[in-house]
Amino acid sequence: MEQKVTPKILQGFIELLPADQIAFEEIKGKIEKTYRRFGFVPLDTPTLEYSEVLLAKAGGETEKQIYRFQHHDSDVALRFDLTVPLSRYVAQHYPDLSFPFKRYQISKSFRGERPQKGRYREFYQCDIDVIGAEELDLSYDAEVTAAISAVFCELDIGEFVIRINNRKILSGFFSELGLGDLTADVMRTIDKLPKIGLEKTHEELIKLGVNEAQLEKIDAFVKISGSNKEKIAALRALCSNEKFTFGVDELEKVVNLAHGLGVKEKNMEIDLSIVRGLDYYTGTVYETFIVGHENFGSVCSGGRYDDLAGFYTDKKLPGVGASIGLSRLFAQLKDNGMINTETKTVSKALLLPMGEEQFPAAAKTAEALRSAGVETDVYWSAKSLKAKFKYADRCGVKFVAVIGESEAAEGKVSLRNMTTGEQTSVSAEQASQIIKKD
Amino acid sequence: MEQKVTPKILQGFIELLPADQIAFEEIKGKIEKTYRRFGFVPLDTPTLEYSEVLLAKAGGETEKQIYRFQHHDSDVALRFDLTVPLSRYVAQHYPDLSFPFKRYQISKSFRGERPQKGRYREFYQCDIDVIGAEELDLSYDAEVTAAISAVFCELDIGEFVIRINNRKILSGFFSELGLGDLTADVMRTIDKLPKIGLEKTHEELIKLGVNEAQLEKIDAFVKISGSNKEKIAALRALCSNEKFTFGVDELEKVVNLAHGLGVKEKNMEIDLSIVRGLDYYTGTVYETFIVGHENFGSVCSGGRYDDLAGFYTDKKLPGVGASIGLSRLFAQLKDNGMINTETKTVSKALLLPMGEEQFPAAAKTAEALRSAGVETDVYWSAKSLKAKFKYADRCGVKFVAVIGESEAAEGKVSLRNMTTGEQTSVSAEQASQIIKKD
Repeated sequence: MEQKVTPKILQGFIELLPADQIAFEEIKGKIEKTYRRFGFVPLDTPTLEYSEVLLAKAGGETEKQIYRFQHHDSDVALRFDLTVPLSRYVAQHYPDLSFPFKRYQISKSFRGERPQKGRYREFYQCDIDVIGAEELDLSYDAEVTAAISAVFCELDIGEFVIRINNRKILSGFFSELGLGDLTADVMRTIDKLPKIGLEKTHEELIKLGVNEAQLEKIDAFVKISGSNKEKIAALRALCSNEKFTFGVDELEKVVNLAHGLGVKEKNMEIDLSIVRGLDYYTGTVYETFIVGHENFGSVCSGGRYDDLAGFYTDKKLPGVGASIGLSRLFAQLKDNGMINTETKTVSKALLLPMGEEQFPAAAKTAEALRSAGVETDVYWSAKSLKAKFKYADRCGVKFVAVIGESEAAEGKVSLRNMTTGEQTSVSAEQASQIIKKD
Repeated sequence: MEQKVTPKILQGFIELLPADQIAFEEIKGKIEKTYRRFGFVPLDTPTLEYSEVLLAKAGGETEKQIYRFQHHDSDVALRFDLTVPLSRYVAQHYPDLSFPFKRYQISKSFRGERPQKGRYREFYQCDIDVIGAEELDLSYDAEVTAAISAVFCELDIGEFVIRINNRKILSGFFSELGLGDLTADVMRTIDKLPKIGLEKTHEELIKLGVNEAQLEKIDAFVKISGSNKEKIAALRALCSNEKFTFGVDELEKVVNLAHGLGVKEKNMEIDLSIVRGLDYYTGTVYETFIVGHENFGSVCSGGRYDDLAGFYTDKKLPGVGASIGLSRLFAQLKDNGMINTETKTVSKALLLPMGEEQFPAAAKTAEALRSAGVETDVYWSAKSLKAKFKYADRCGVKFVAVIGESEAAEGKVSLRNMTTGEQTSVSAEQASQIIKKD
């Protein structure tokens, strides 16, 4: 006997068993459907690109983690996110696109980071972005917020909150405080507030050179609370710096329009501690949390940026977007028993012909059910009745239709609802109606 | 100004503009939906695997074309098809799977072959396979045939024919002729018949050592014609070799059951010249052609194999499957004007608020339409009416809803059907009904 190769996959990579894969596809499908409902069009860029193109902007960690290699004469790499390919795409195809350009992309990205729970080297991201030519109305920030909210309503994995802020408020506030030069450091420290607590934040701020008076103002700022309306009012009372006020105006507009677009009060909360990556976002920023599962971290983040593709083009391309790290989210949902991963079939009905003589009747029934749009599996194997029902049990199908001699003769099936145990003798047409009504 | 990086993609790789991408996704969606309707469950394996695993069976051309590189200590490669990962998956997860295991996978594969029209280095394949443990009923060959037929009915790209054969017929026939040792060579030559014609085929066969009497028999065999029933009868009359007869029995059963499963006579034709790759398929084989576009080559091919994963496991895993090379098919359909690539939006409705004062009314309308399941875009930019309608025209949306001062006051929209030019003043609810009925 020849030597066998051990079947295994790379460390940090993942593949799912059928029940999980089906649940994963259902979530992915809901995200995609919602993105489309908001008018985003699909995009699918190459998995592999020129390293020079992908790394035009990157550096540091990204460059270390990228899967990069030489193929013939080309220095190539697997994409590490969906934003860089979008930038390249928009710069490259600018004359052929209509702006604002609203696209979604649901694809895998690759990072060779140290594998850890819920962090994969190959992972799905579900991104939406709206890109403007030269300018992009603020209303699109609300559109993206509304799309995120609609996605998490659709996913139905519990209450969620989109925590929204505007970075102009922060930078206006700090320049008003006379902390202009320290803005980046101070904001990075405030960003850690939810993780390290108020006391530790204070210590770090003092270390940065923040004085007592400034600290008091920062505290007052961070402690602003109440409804979104009350927060906006408190902000207006706190500071009258021009940039600050502009940021508050933007935030108010975005929040109001997002509500108009259907985002419920409970699902969107102004949170002045949300900062996000410093050098990218310039206005609206958001993070999304599942209530009671804040330890998941933000399950959908994004914001507004001034310049998407400055590394490829002189065209000014402002945009706003958001991204769901689906592979990670799925792992978290599964680990916490928040999704059904019991069903190992996409079929609504499983036909069990009792013997080979009933195969033609089973074929006819399958044809009728499938034509009616019912996902239908047939167990064609000449196994015992016990083996047949074991297959039905294992796959977790909802309806089993037994076709024996008498059923075949009458042109009927014995349809059993596997949940209720109810069993009826019906025609294929009746069966399809029962199944579709379920 | 800093140096710009030229935005471009790798040679042989492809990405689509929105109109094409939307058409592509529609086709992909139809294929997936049909596969699921036949009870196939989704599978998604890693893009990157150990080279040793991917190349366990491969050799020759495949090994030369594969994207292979070193990542840290691992010799890794991008998958070059979806069959090898399936083999590895089934061998690896054997105890956790239910058999027969019916899976579909719609994913990209990678081959660094010389780029040419319609041949890409990154390409989508849409595969279905049914894998049995130890054994797999012949009926699954008919299931796969029926699934292929249903896919091409669904795609609605013109008449198509699944050309079906059984390799046991061929090998039985040749061993009966006393050409056993030459079987492989003779079959390879016959495989070329549709391309090189009868005369050239004869020449090559004679070169191989086929004598006059044998040539006559081969001719009689190749010329068998008529309906599927007539062909089966002619085969039975031609030869009584045991393996041959077994193959004819199988072919007859598969064809009959496939008809029972809804495959129309015109869509499935026994074609004794279909051979396919020699060392893989062992029974049923099929190729699919679009009538009038036979130059596309086979757009969906597959067949029965005895041993899926012999390189990874001692378990016997017979299977039957088929594969659609979607990237290539899409390019061919587009080049021949066989698909609509005019629509640049997934939205059924585009809302045009006349000014910023109408943004709240537009938000409310968008929310109503989207809640009713209507894909809806809103043009939020403060541009001229002309610019707004230009955007509507360019994206090819079917319904445009203008919201001006009076519409907003009345809680209505001016809904225009862009195809008929018909315009009505309706509520958001009425608009959603009109759009959904369209």
